[in-house]
Amino acid sequence: MTQRLAAGIDIGGTNTVFGLVDEHGKIHSRGSISTIDFPDPESFTKAAALELQKILKSSRRLIGIGIGAPSGNFFSGSIEYAPNMPWRGVVPLASYFSRELGCPCWLTNDANAAAIGEMLFGAARGKKDFIFITLGTGLGSGIVVNGRLVYGHDGMAGELGHVCVERNGRLCGCGKRGCLETYCSATGIVKTYREFKRISESEDIGSKYVFEQAKKGEKEALDAFQFTGTLLGEALANSVAYTSPEAIYLFGGLAQSGDLLLTPTLKAFNENLLHVYRNKVTIHWSGLPGADAALLGAASLVFNELDA
Amino acid sequence: MTQRLAAGIDIGGTNTVFGLVDEHGKIHSRGSISTIDFPDPESFTKAAALELQKILKSSRRLIGIGIGAPSGNFFSGSIEYAPNMPWRGVVPLASYFSRELGCPCWLTNDANAAAIGEMLFGAARGKKDFIFITLGTGLGSGIVVNGRLVYGHDGMAGELGHVCVERNGRLCGCGKRGCLETYCSATGIVKTYREFKRISESEDIGSKYVFEQAKKGEKEALDAFQFTGTLLGEALANSVAYTSPEAIYLFGGLAQSGDLLLTPTLKAFNENLLHVYRNKVTIHWSGLPGADAALLGAASLVFNELDA
Repeated sequence: MTQRLAAGIDIGGTNTVFGLVDEHGKIHSRGSISTIDFPDPESFTKAAALELQKILKSSRRLIGIGIGAPSGNFFSGSIEYAPNMPWRGVVPLASYFSRELGCPCWLTNDANAAAIGEMLFGAARGKKDFIFITLGTGLGSGIVVNGRLVYGHDGMAGELGHVCVERNGRLCGCGKRGCLETYCSATGIVKTYREFKRISESEDIGSKYVFEQAKKGEKEALDAFQFTGTLLGEALANSVAYTSPEAIYLFGGLAQSGDLLLTPTLKAFNENLLHVYRNKVTIHWSGLPGADAALLGAASLVFNELDA
Repeated sequence: MTQRLAAGIDIGGTNTVFGLVDEHGKIHSRGSISTIDFPDPESFTKAAALELQKILKSSRRLIGIGIGAPSGNFFSGSIEYAPNMPWRGVVPLASYFSRELGCPCWLTNDANAAAIGEMLFGAARGKKDFIFITLGTGLGSGIVVNGRLVYGHDGMAGELGHVCVERNGRLCGCGKRGCLETYCSATGIVKTYREFKRISESEDIGSKYVFEQAKKGEKEALDAFQFTGTLLGEALANSVAYTSPEAIYLFGGLAQSGDLLLTPTLKAFNENLLHVYRNKVTIHWSGLPGADAALLGAASLVFNELDA
């Protein structure tokens, strides 16, 4: 019997990685291609499809293609006005890939794809109601209700990074103020640390540096984790009041700081949770392998749609 | 052909109203019974079933029973630890009614039931993604995603009244501080007005009084509406980032204050909406008749489940 293989494509502003994934989440082969070198999405699609066919041995057949991309809209299969992509406006990438490779293609934003990956291949296996949070440069999220990702009426649901947590707070890249991701993200914790430590913007530090300083016991770095975790815990407690998930999964660079982040997060979460939800919701680390999560997430779209 | 009739039962802490409703939302007959007079839910069920059978003519047959009740859990069919009900603990009312009347029975909380009523019989007809908000003594909500009410893993999703909107804000009946319903509800606006006008708690005023004062042009009353609408608009803008609804419906006593509430709500909503959602979401008044909304909502549960 031939194996069912899906192509997972994780498109970033600079690079694109792809792989062939089976229904158990095993990656059989992989490759990558530059995104930024292609001035138009059509030539990018042709080049990526060619690379994919190289790793797809002749005896194998793709059952579908899944794409995770910033500002990806599941319903239109398009990247829509992504600020950090080389291509402008609305880019109907799913139909380009589908045509080029002769199989169905689904596209969504990277956090949504990773949420489905978590459900099919990660720690949320068998869970039907959960929230998935990526703590990277920004804060992304995917909400799963009754086993299905919530896309909303326009395909753009699940933007928890832009829930306001501080009236007139920090200016966000989206133009609003006080968005959750201006505090709870790699960028956010660095900003907090700078404020606490009075370090100017010109000095180049990253969240890893804050983590290392905290591990050394530096007060300002510890305070930055405390502050970040507290805001995150409060926000997650609020989020439970929407969809009453069974679990919340944290993923991404900042999620690797372990108890430094988790301890204050859990404390604020439990203190702010409405009584009817207490002792019903758990917070976990993602079960997806960090480096391959985006790829697995993208591929999981295919199995999730075909097996729905 | 015999008409398909569902019984809708709206259970309150003091009184219970019920009616026979057809699939177009027409109420054919109705009745009411005291809730508080029955020391136990079993005797209440027997009495209510008897009353229902009186209005159900012999030629007619119930296809099902829908119950809207405070702290109602759809999954268990129980009222769970309702603070303002005569019966304590977990009360499996759906199974009591189902046994007593020999037909299926569904139960959920009153705001969820009204949300389904709005979808089947009200202004949300044909809408698949929306949020329904009741602005009464408290703030209740029902979230509909892809045509289905969101119950969450435990049947208790959609408690937007208890999202924190003000850190260390007003003490809520739930024990937390700064919950949305402590500001945006009939009780909340009265509290705001008292603060603005420096009226003591001993003086008995209601939200209708604040409304009348605002209509007369009194500054503090106008300010109270401005304040309430602004907080509501901000909270609704945040809520869009979760499920990306097509519309939001406002229902309940406070929703009857018209533009006094809606103007500041819309202003804050539009100012705080993430750019990807702009010009996609509309805020409306409920299309359910105020006095019968709870009854219609309860009955709509039956058609929603049987025709799903």
